[in-house]
Amino acid sequence: MEIKILENIFESNREMAEEIRSLLNEKKVYMIDIMSSPGAGKTTLTDTIIGKLKYEYRFGVIEGDIKTATDAEKLAKHDIPIVQIETSLFGGDCHLESSWIMKSLDHFDLDDIDCIIIENVGNLVCPAEFELGDDERMVVLSVTEGEDKPIKYPLMFNSSRTMVLSKTDLLPYLPYNIDTAIANARRANPDITIIKTSALSGEGIGDLLDHLRKNIDRKKSA
Amino acid sequence: MEIKILENIFESNREMAEEIRSLLNEKKVYMIDIMSSPGAGKTTLTDTIIGKLKYEYRFGVIEGDIKTATDAEKLAKHDIPIVQIETSLFGGDCHLESSWIMKSLDHFDLDDIDCIIIENVGNLVCPAEFELGDDERMVVLSVTEGEDKPIKYPLMFNSSRTMVLSKTDLLPYLPYNIDTAIANARRANPDITIIKTSALSGEGIGDLLDHLRKNIDRKKSA
Repeated sequence: MEIKILENIFESNREMAEEIRSLLNEKKVYMIDIMSSPGAGKTTLTDTIIGKLKYEYRFGVIEGDIKTATDAEKLAKHDIPIVQIETSLFGGDCHLESSWIMKSLDHFDLDDIDCIIIENVGNLVCPAEFELGDDERMVVLSVTEGEDKPIKYPLMFNSSRTMVLSKTDLLPYLPYNIDTAIANARRANPDITIIKTSALSGEGIGDLLDHLRKNIDRKKSA
Repeated sequence: MEIKILENIFESNREMAEEIRSLLNEKKVYMIDIMSSPGAGKTTLTDTIIGKLKYEYRFGVIEGDIKTATDAEKLAKHDIPIVQIETSLFGGDCHLESSWIMKSLDHFDLDDIDCIIIENVGNLVCPAEFELGDDERMVVLSVTEGEDKPIKYPLMFNSSRTMVLSKTDLLPYLPYNIDTAIANARRANPDITIIKTSALSGEGIGDLLDHLRKNIDRKKSA
């Protein structure tokens, strides 16, 4: 019985994700679901992307956290619409669900937005199981987390279109083999796009912005 | 109905945790549940602890991973009993449950063990919700994860007896305020014991070993 109910949760989540996808296709809004371990740099990356691209595109942000709105507060300076979902109000949940995303979309004027960034709960497990209707899942993996994470958390990496390998400025101080990390990511997902970045030194940020420009533009002209 | 079933899961998990606690009290075995984000250094810390203490105490290890047995393989050199739980066999689960721990204990000769180390699944959320019957929950927080994690994942820090602040060798290269991190941990849990460590430089490892010696000895003489 338990399993039956779990299946229903996933099924209704998937149906709602499809509704979101249709709505965003109609409105030509590109949506990215950023996922990672706690502290891999999702907020810093979101902050950097918006800071660099906000005069080219109109952004909206959905922040998912178990507790606190500190991430949303960090992004408030950009003067863009932000919805904070505090999942502990839904029972301490470790992920976001599509029905909460749909409700969040009510707070945006979708005719006035080019790109929505969802910052999911910091967790390499549960968020991967819930489709949100986005165009791109982007997993952020900090180089401080070790090389083996893509094979230890295969669903996350297999279901992501892009892997951002963050904090590369720390590489000189770590016993870390970046080639092994990349090989592990490709083992989990041969098609994954890999972008190496450091928000601190700026390395790779240009590549990330070009990747986003290309995808947002393609959606707008679809 | 869904909530009712979840309550039953937690309740039966708690009952089994109590059985484990009674068994380990009878056998005078000290059990630690190590939890953290992916890549914070649980395996390295476990490796260090066992390497330094294995001639003083008899260890057993329970490894929890969604997929792979690479962590167990890293510890195999110590020639101690290790049980690997691959949670994907139970449906991709993001945490360990007490019934799996109870089954794992069957593989140990508890009369010949002083301390069991559980390395939980890398996740700051779900593992905190499942009691395992241990004597000590130890959360490992890497300094690369930022200062705010104790307030963003309050149950994990509130329910842990000890916080190991790991990778302190990286502090010179990070925009990180250690006092803020410690204040946040104390805000989540005023009684938490905080030990700063670097497995690379060796900083604080002596403090951690003394902490463990004290607790294992106390249990043995109880």
